[in-house]
Amino acid sequence: MARPLLEELKKFQGLIDRALRSYFPPAGPYTQRVQKAMAYSLFAGGKRIRPMLCLMACRAVGGRMNNALPAACALEYLHTYSLIHDDLPALDNDDYRRGRLSCHKKFGEATAILAGDALLTEAFFLLSRREVMKEVQPRIRVQVIQEIAGAAGIQGMVAGQEADLEAEKKKVSLPFLQYIHNHKTGALIKASLVCGGLIGEGTAGEIRSLRKFGEKIGLVFQIKDDLLNVEGKAKLLGKRTGTDEKKAKATFPVLMGMEQSMILGQELVKEAGKTLKIFGSKAGPLRAIGDYIFLRDR
Amino acid sequence: MARPLLEELKKFQGLIDRALRSYFPPAGPYTQRVQKAMAYSLFAGGKRIRPMLCLMACRAVGGRMNNALPAACALEYLHTYSLIHDDLPALDNDDYRRGRLSCHKKFGEATAILAGDALLTEAFFLLSRREVMKEVQPRIRVQVIQEIAGAAGIQGMVAGQEADLEAEKKKVSLPFLQYIHNHKTGALIKASLVCGGLIGEGTAGEIRSLRKFGEKIGLVFQIKDDLLNVEGKAKLLGKRTGTDEKKAKATFPVLMGMEQSMILGQELVKEAGKTLKIFGSKAGPLRAIGDYIFLRDR
Repeated sequence: MARPLLEELKKFQGLIDRALRSYFPPAGPYTQRVQKAMAYSLFAGGKRIRPMLCLMACRAVGGRMNNALPAACALEYLHTYSLIHDDLPALDNDDYRRGRLSCHKKFGEATAILAGDALLTEAFFLLSRREVMKEVQPRIRVQVIQEIAGAAGIQGMVAGQEADLEAEKKKVSLPFLQYIHNHKTGALIKASLVCGGLIGEGTAGEIRSLRKFGEKIGLVFQIKDDLLNVEGKAKLLGKRTGTDEKKAKATFPVLMGMEQSMILGQELVKEAGKTLKIFGSKAGPLRAIGDYIFLRDR
Repeated sequence: MARPLLEELKKFQGLIDRALRSYFPPAGPYTQRVQKAMAYSLFAGGKRIRPMLCLMACRAVGGRMNNALPAACALEYLHTYSLIHDDLPALDNDDYRRGRLSCHKKFGEATAILAGDALLTEAFFLLSRREVMKEVQPRIRVQVIQEIAGAAGIQGMVAGQEADLEAEKKKVSLPFLQYIHNHKTGALIKASLVCGGLIGEGTAGEIRSLRKFGEKIGLVFQIKDDLLNVEGKAKLLGKRTGTDEKKAKATFPVLMGMEQSMILGQELVKEAGKTLKIFGSKAGPLRAIGDYIFLRDR
């Protein structure tokens, strides 16, 4: 993909990483180990897609991007917690993540469970902290918390994870696969956009558009993940490829073929772009990240 | 203990149980199993001490108790999540809880981890939901969320749990034991009181008093738990007794003897009572629950 766009995204990633470091909780007398585990997974070279979507949605509605930084970080906390817990032996049992040992392989299961719990809890602590959220009205802060908790909980991410466990036992149809992804990854991606829009004090119509954009782009994200699992370079991905096939896991390429998956992804990117009409030229960065999600090589 | 007090507490427990059922999230198409696991642990005959403290603190500052019901339930969600995750094989590895199989023994580890995650997340969803928290100003709702997230996270419950893991490896001093309990159980007990006070719109002085009461009574709670582990009736407790001794676990009876532990507990109850002076006769129910925490037989 185009070098200027990648450079632009890198700038955003730098901004987000600095914010993540500045909000990171100070060590207590007996919490060094769990904090090391939290930092290990949080600063493992994640793409920061959710925080970027949040910041860019805030900008698209004309808000001050800095006001959305704490929420952007909270979203990355939640994403990281979900990866740590998903990798546990009782769940996906993955030894590697982003080219390094997964959290429980490095720090043991007990600490990995606690590190996930802590990141999940700290997300809501960050979202409610007066000192860091003072530019955002309490009324909006509560809306943001409701949006994110709804997306992460039993009606969102947890439902997707549970459905994914169920999927191991039965034949998976395309609608079931879409249900899994809409919940497991789609819900938080959508919430990232909506929260950026809320913090930027977007209109109801603008928030609706962001929600629609999030629905499309969330699915693109997963299709691309599936494609990368088949064709991606293990070195770039930092995890083994071909694992879905080995596990006979239902994926878009398995259910509809590589070519059709590519075509569907491209169509969804186009449709997603259309939902951004309302923002005019201010949607530039959002469009760019939509392209990035489909074109990325890791 | 006195029968009228027990009857009074039972009424409160009934009120809380009905609220817990009314807020319980509806089942999704693939979440039956995780929701069954959540309900199994949430409705396992818990004493509802944290919700009761929250409601009674709200009443002590002259607030409407019903306004504090969602927060009371969120506190019980958090307490239940912490029990589910603590019982996991990687942590305390307990097969029984409240006279029944622990969550992971009944539903498997994967579902137990997810049920804990879901309860933790639902707590913040409940605290932010407009529909159920509409009587509480957004400004106060955010304060409540900050208080609870702070108490449950890396500076509270998680720190206590991590310190507890550390304690297995070294000689435990009395200050270290107090650190563990102040974080593992004390922080959430204190937050329960403070949140009740905040929702009831108590003055800064009243909130301070509730915080002090919480510090004392939290420690009483743990001393009593330790005493029950030595002398309690396994049948009433619903879990094995004498387990602390077998694990050579540091407890108040081990570090200071049974009698001194009893004396310390009684002194703390008295001191706790003094912190309630500011509330006059309105503190009756809070005093009662302080007594209950020390006199309970399970």
